[in-house]
Amino acid sequence: MNKLVAEFIGTGVLVLFGCGSVVFGGEAIGQVGFALAFGLAIVAMAYGIGPISGCHINPAVSLGAFLDNRMSANEMVQYWVAQFAGALVGALIILAIAGSNASGLGVNGWGEGYGGGYSLISALIFEIVFTAIFVVVILGSTGEKSSPGFAGLAIGLTLVAIHLVGIKITGVSVNPARSFGPALLVGGNALAQLWLFIVAPLVGGAIGGLLYRAKILKV
Amino acid sequence: MNKLVAEFIGTGVLVLFGCGSVVFGGEAIGQVGFALAFGLAIVAMAYGIGPISGCHINPAVSLGAFLDNRMSANEMVQYWVAQFAGALVGALIILAIAGSNASGLGVNGWGEGYGGGYSLISALIFEIVFTAIFVVVILGSTGEKSSPGFAGLAIGLTLVAIHLVGIKITGVSVNPARSFGPALLVGGNALAQLWLFIVAPLVGGAIGGLLYRAKILKV
Amino acid sequence: MNKLVAEFIGTGVLVLFGCGSVVFGGEAIGQVGFALAFGLAIVAMAYGIGPISGCHINPAVSLGAFLDNRMSANEMVQYWVAQFAGALVGALIILAIAGSNASGLGVNGWGEGYGGGYSLISALIFEIVFTAIFVVVILGSTGEKSSPGFAGLAIGLTLVAIHLVGIKITGVSVNPARSFGPALLVGGNALAQLWLFIVAPLVGGAIGGLLYRAKILKV
Amino acid sequence: MNKLVAEFIGTGVLVLFGCGSVVFGGEAIGQVGFALAFGLAIVAMAYGIGPISGCHINPAVSLGAFLDNRMSANEMVQYWVAQFAGALVGALIILAIAGSNASGLGVNGWGEGYGGGYSLISALIFEIVFTAIFVVVILGSTGEKSSPGFAGLAIGLTLVAIHLVGIKITGVSVNPARSFGPALLVGGNALAQLWLFIVAPLVGGAIGGLLYRAKILKV
Repeated sequence: MNKLVAEFIGTGVLVLFGCGSVVFGGEAIGQVGFALAFGLAIVAMAYGIGPISGCHINPAVSLGAFLDNRMSANEMVQYWVAQFAGALVGALIILAIAGSNASGLGVNGWGEGYGGGYSLISALIFEIVFTAIFVVVILGSTGEKSSPGFAGLAIGLTLVAIHLVGIKITGVSVNPARSFGPALLVGGNALAQLWLFIVAPLVGGAIGGLLYRAKILKV
Repeated sequence: MNKLVAEFIGTGVLVLFGCGSVVFGGEAIGQVGFALAFGLAIVAMAYGIGPISGCHINPAVSLGAFLDNRMSANEMVQYWVAQFAGALVGALIILAIAGSNASGLGVNGWGEGYGGGYSLISALIFEIVFTAIFVVVILGSTGEKSSPGFAGLAIGLTLVAIHLVGIKITGVSVNPARSFGPALLVGGNALAQLWLFIVAPLVGGAIGGLLYRAKILKV
Repeated sequence: MNKLVAEFIGTGVLVLFGCGSVVFGGEAIGQVGFALAFGLAIVAMAYGIGPISGCHINPAVSLGAFLDNRMSANEMVQYWVAQFAGALVGALIILAIAGSNASGLGVNGWGEGYGGGYSLISALIFEIVFTAIFVVVILGSTGEKSSPGFAGLAIGLTLVAIHLVGIKITGVSVNPARSFGPALLVGGNALAQLWLFIVAPLVGGAIGGLLYRAKILKV
Repeated sequence: MNKLVAEFIGTGVLVLFGCGSVVFGGEAIGQVGFALAFGLAIVAMAYGIGPISGCHINPAVSLGAFLDNRMSANEMVQYWVAQFAGALVGALIILAIAGSNASGLGVNGWGEGYGGGYSLISALIFEIVFTAIFVVVILGSTGEKSSPGFAGLAIGLTLVAIHLVGIKITGVSVNPARSFGPALLVGGNALAQLWLFIVAPLVGGAIGGLLYRAKILKV
């Protein structure tokens, strides 16, 4: 139960910090600021709640961990529920603070009117490839021969870099829960496009997990 | 006594670096610069004076540590005195350097005329929730099963992220001492609103401490 | 074989993150953003695939490692092939995402019309000196008396700093593979100037390696 | 002898990265970029040459180490010579790359026409206080009870924060060698004001060292 509480809080904090920086920081901090807020939220939670749950706070990461035989299917599904619930509460807290000032809640998207106007195909490739890379970093940095303690920094700073590349493409999901919370509250186009930010990161996470499972990446 | 000297110096450095970056750096470094200055001041002191006092340099953190049975009430009160005194001296050094150029000393606030003009309620929610998260990271990253040595980086980078979210809301306190020093010297509205930046971070710190005390967050 | 797969993926990720940030992030993240993306890609891969291959992902680094007797000539050449191939695939993925929006692919260069318009001589000195420093940091931070685990952070953050200095001079290569992938796809001037970004980093890498081999830098 | 070579290279790299970012990066990276370049140069050298010489690369740091009984007066003077020589060569390499584009070489200064136009007194207080803090971080993070390996990151990130505060006040020295190299080549006002950037950091370094020597800061 403690693990699920930790995943719930951790995913909430990720949304609260990351999407919160978009809503409240806005142009005063810019995309470099958003990228740092998302990535450093991972650093915060990796050391804050990592000792409890491992700090997945991302359904695609849990899927990769399951495929690499690091958790059971049953536990994965429980993690998923906690993660989606946490992300929703994180988005609700942003709304509560923002009052009437909220705009967009940092939702993900693609196509005309979103970011750089990239296509569905661009969005798909970006989310699959970068989630796969993200999960490779996570599984590699927490594997048997990795340096103990460094994973949290490595993973968080990786997410900073991923955002520096992709904010204009999709706003960067690589995490179905992070997309779910804001989209559910904003609705409209964000909700209509939510499927991609659930499917593509899970596909990417599976690729990352299978690269280790199949021992293509092997220490 | 050495612990109190360390807390005094540490809190002074936090104000000197963080509020100093606002006063002297200003628009040339922007809010990302302010966020980095506050957070990296924590990194500096965590490794510089952490081995001496544990580097709380924040009354809300000491309250959380007390509630999680990591320090006595007596020691907590001594830490508080050192922290408030240090913050005041830090603000005085900024004034001494600034001469006639000082403007605002990086005070916290809310409402019309401050940052994004957020309401009292927004300020309250932000300070309580984010201080609770901050204290969760601190207690989690320094607990029994944490990776030795990493806490200073994790905590400092968490404070960077908190600032990226909240500078427009309250200027970010999450630390009664950090608000106290500048407000006492600037007076006016900053002093009139100081109560919130003492009460809300202490409430948040208590929540964070009780989450561990009640073993809701348990390794 | 696993080592070569890791070097292939790692070099691809370096190009994908670094050059991708230039292509997709553009002015919204600026040169500080590009610098962070390149450097944090190293952090990502150092912890993600470092346990497998050592994470050279740079022919100049492999040359330095060879000259300091850390790998055989045969293995170095295999690493080189994997690195150049990975960089090319990284650049191809950027193209696939960008569709018609690609511009320049973050190629290196010098002279009129490139960055600050620095001369061939400036470009040569910059690339040789900074690659030598880069390889000194890599060999020093992974040597016998170094602190285990920290090399990935140190090396990645060094690459951030190198980019902060040199983006206007050459766009910063210090890595023949990183220059090769984008130049091959863009052609024209980028391809005509590619020789410098193969020769100069290799000369710099050799200098770095020989400083250790000759025990001028000796722990 | 190896130690002196390491200090020579390390101080040269500090000037090359830090002042180089000012000369070449300029407005494209801004003061946050300069701050990162100076600080991350310390990270680079702490892990790159730290195992050899301890990576002082700053006469004020060597003075603090001497006063805390960590090195002999004789060795301190040798370090000083290597540091000043390295800084000069670092500045010369900047000139060599810049050709006719060099402007100012990132010299320190104060008063009208420099940065924010702060007074001599402001400059003195800033350099003394912040060098003292810097040396406290260095001695504290490398002391007996410190976490092995973290000092390089802590010290480098501290220097980032110091620059975020002080670039407009003095350009930030806290290091006589860093001021010496550029001032000697630029001459004029920079050379006339050089005395302050030798005296004040040494006074600050002495204060930092004596706080430990006198066991006012005691683990």
